[in-house]
Amino acid sequence: METVKYLLSEDRMPTAWYNIAADLPAPPPAVLHPGTGQPIGPADLAPLFPMALILQEVSTERQIEIPDEVQAIYRQWRPTPLYRARRLEKALDTPAKIYYKYEGVSPAGSHKPNTAVAQAYYNKQEGVKRLITETGAGQWGSSLSFAGALFGLEVLVYMVKVSYNQKPYRRALMEAYGARVVASPSTETNAGRMILAEHPDSTGSLGIAISEAVEVAAQDPDARYALGSVLNHVLLHQTVIGQEALAQLEMAGDYPDIVVGCTGGGSNFAGIAFPFIGAKLRGERDVRVVAVEPAACPSLTKGRYAYDFGDTAKMTPMVKMHTLGHDFVPSGIHAGGLRYHGMAPLVSHLLELGQFEATAAQQLETFAAGLQFARAEGILPAPEANHAVAGAMREALRCKEAGESKTILFNLCGHGHFDMQAYTDYQAGKLKDFEYSDEEVAMALAGLPSVG
Amino acid sequence: METVKYLLSEDRMPTAWYNIAADLPAPPPAVLHPGTGQPIGPADLAPLFPMALILQEVSTERQIEIPDEVQAIYRQWRPTPLYRARRLEKALDTPAKIYYKYEGVSPAGSHKPNTAVAQAYYNKQEGVKRLITETGAGQWGSSLSFAGALFGLEVLVYMVKVSYNQKPYRRALMEAYGARVVASPSTETNAGRMILAEHPDSTGSLGIAISEAVEVAAQDPDARYALGSVLNHVLLHQTVIGQEALAQLEMAGDYPDIVVGCTGGGSNFAGIAFPFIGAKLRGERDVRVVAVEPAACPSLTKGRYAYDFGDTAKMTPMVKMHTLGHDFVPSGIHAGGLRYHGMAPLVSHLLELGQFEATAAQQLETFAAGLQFARAEGILPAPEANHAVAGAMREALRCKEAGESKTILFNLCGHGHFDMQAYTDYQAGKLKDFEYSDEEVAMALAGLPSVG
Repeated sequence: METVKYLLSEDRMPTAWYNIAADLPAPPPAVLHPGTGQPIGPADLAPLFPMALILQEVSTERQIEIPDEVQAIYRQWRPTPLYRARRLEKALDTPAKIYYKYEGVSPAGSHKPNTAVAQAYYNKQEGVKRLITETGAGQWGSSLSFAGALFGLEVLVYMVKVSYNQKPYRRALMEAYGARVVASPSTETNAGRMILAEHPDSTGSLGIAISEAVEVAAQDPDARYALGSVLNHVLLHQTVIGQEALAQLEMAGDYPDIVVGCTGGGSNFAGIAFPFIGAKLRGERDVRVVAVEPAACPSLTKGRYAYDFGDTAKMTPMVKMHTLGHDFVPSGIHAGGLRYHGMAPLVSHLLELGQFEATAAQQLETFAAGLQFARAEGILPAPEANHAVAGAMREALRCKEAGESKTILFNLCGHGHFDMQAYTDYQAGKLKDFEYSDEEVAMALAGLPSVG
Repeated sequence: METVKYLLSEDRMPTAWYNIAADLPAPPPAVLHPGTGQPIGPADLAPLFPMALILQEVSTERQIEIPDEVQAIYRQWRPTPLYRARRLEKALDTPAKIYYKYEGVSPAGSHKPNTAVAQAYYNKQEGVKRLITETGAGQWGSSLSFAGALFGLEVLVYMVKVSYNQKPYRRALMEAYGARVVASPSTETNAGRMILAEHPDSTGSLGIAISEAVEVAAQDPDARYALGSVLNHVLLHQTVIGQEALAQLEMAGDYPDIVVGCTGGGSNFAGIAFPFIGAKLRGERDVRVVAVEPAACPSLTKGRYAYDFGDTAKMTPMVKMHTLGHDFVPSGIHAGGLRYHGMAPLVSHLLELGQFEATAAQQLETFAAGLQFARAEGILPAPEANHAVAGAMREALRCKEAGESKTILFNLCGHGHFDMQAYTDYQAGKLKDFEYSDEEVAMALAGLPSVG
């Protein structure tokens, strides 16, 4: 019944983000202009992002200082706890040691505020008045709304229409923080109006919502665009997670044999894994790293490593990533935060370098794992986090079979308080597994741009 | 923008609960048998509670040791943070210092696990197999379900039918922890069947749900009943809140001039306030303590201090408390956790002794306060907690008028993640204020038993 919690004192909270670009044997491929197909420079991104974030996007400095004001806000919930899951170990009867880092203690309930606060700060510093973004399930939208409220920035969120209607409580949380939330596709943008003219009943997609947000941000000199995953600077901000975990495991006198994270766009995975992969790249310490993605959106396990757009309307730059194609519409599984057609370029690059393994999990396995975790550890995970729980449990059960006492670390990136319909459906037997055939994936990939 | 957080290290977590009975100038009035009207003894309560809890109910020891196993589970989320609300102070432009203790970091999202874990522990120790309880809004039911899962106890929850239907996500959380949840009135008990025979469309009440739970627990030798507020031992378990706050304010070099808590059954108020009231009773340190209750369920401000039953069906013992009458059905305000007809006997006794002030707040004031708090501090409070927020803000604004820099402490007893419909309704202008006339209260009080 024992709870083993490793809490860092505030003075040991990281004061710099860790930039893995400094430790890469080769830099990731260039980012290309959506129109010309030529490499872009910082100035090309200036209408969308503040210069401080653009410079972070291309930086190769290993340590990037966290501004005092961002640290001051992080301290509301950071350092987050690292737990040893002794009760889960007992339930699984495994000789493995399972540790989990818990990011659900943030005000918005996930790891997303780590970057939302930083992005809001840099935008405020550069005189920006409003932030425009998109959200699917709503984790990111609510985190940016929280950060915007603290810095006195207006926040406008294009929320995928199907989620806008199905997840009214995530919308309510954003509105409670003072944000304006618009169902996408909307009549407020050219991109939205074009979609609606052709498909009046469109329920929207993340790709369309990104197009709307980018369009509005690019046209308003007082506004900038904000993205919650995929980009280098977003992954950078999440590295506080893994850095803290390193220090906490040191307190425990331990080091992981295996690090597990779930992957959608790649930001929480990068947050927990990059500091450990960095140590491996520098030849300091070996580790096995496992990414767990949904079988219903298998960019790492079934996608192609190729140049692709970040949005359906092809307005964003092209990046080289593991992608299912920008037209890909993932099946309606409940881990909405993992339903993105592409993977962060840095994460994709590291997979190509053989620095981690990718695996897929079916929905039913992940919910079963999440419920077993909740009953043992008391915390109900978000459906996204259930993928990491399932991955860690697979490894723990392998240890049981092999009689090995390995040390497993995973990132519990958020709680499931806003995902109770998913648990209700699971317990009622209404959820199904889903997997794309190779033929279906090949069809989706046929639309990839012919560059790179 | 600064966050000021006072975190106690785990080794400073309280190892004993504080029992205010030791410091009372006079003991509270006796508990009476529901049938005979005579004082009851420990043996009378044995069918409902384990003996360890019955002994705590009547103990006058100042310190009651917290069992190691309970401490071990507390450490999952305790000590909870104490924050200085600097951003709220700035938003209010007040010279007051506002501190808040945040209990929403528990796995179930409120202070309720402080007693749920202790109750589950003592029941498990005495060989009990299942716990039976009732719940209204669901905070208590989900906390006992959480605790039951950790100790391998079955949990059965009678949930007021209107909440069962309107709050499916609280029910889903209880079921995720493995509890069985039954809409009350049900056909599973005599009490339920009697109500349904007379009122087939009954939407239930807390009083009826208590009757059902007590009936089932009393008949099953392997089961016991569990209550989430009102009783002495429940209030006792909550005193970890105020004890921690005392130590944290000492770290801050501060002591409150004013302590504010919201009141329903009285447990979170007791948790934050009793250690401070105790210091006052012992003549060590003065403090002003303010209880804020909903105007729509005004037991302290409009009720009578009299003997009454805890449930509608008159199955529970009679206790002397501030009550609106056991037949009182409070208006359907959203702070469901504060909708109870009576007040904890110890809290009532202390009001009679002049140890604190009681005040009422209307629903609209509390939601406005909660949203202002969320936008300043980032945490969205539960509707119950909004009453404490509103009370603290009233005091802070008085300080502004008077130009006084007082120190205010309040208890933020839970987050609002499961209460988003209430915020949606508030922002849509659908919520209303409500107040009972003196005549209506007098009518409800007419049904009080004629004892004491």
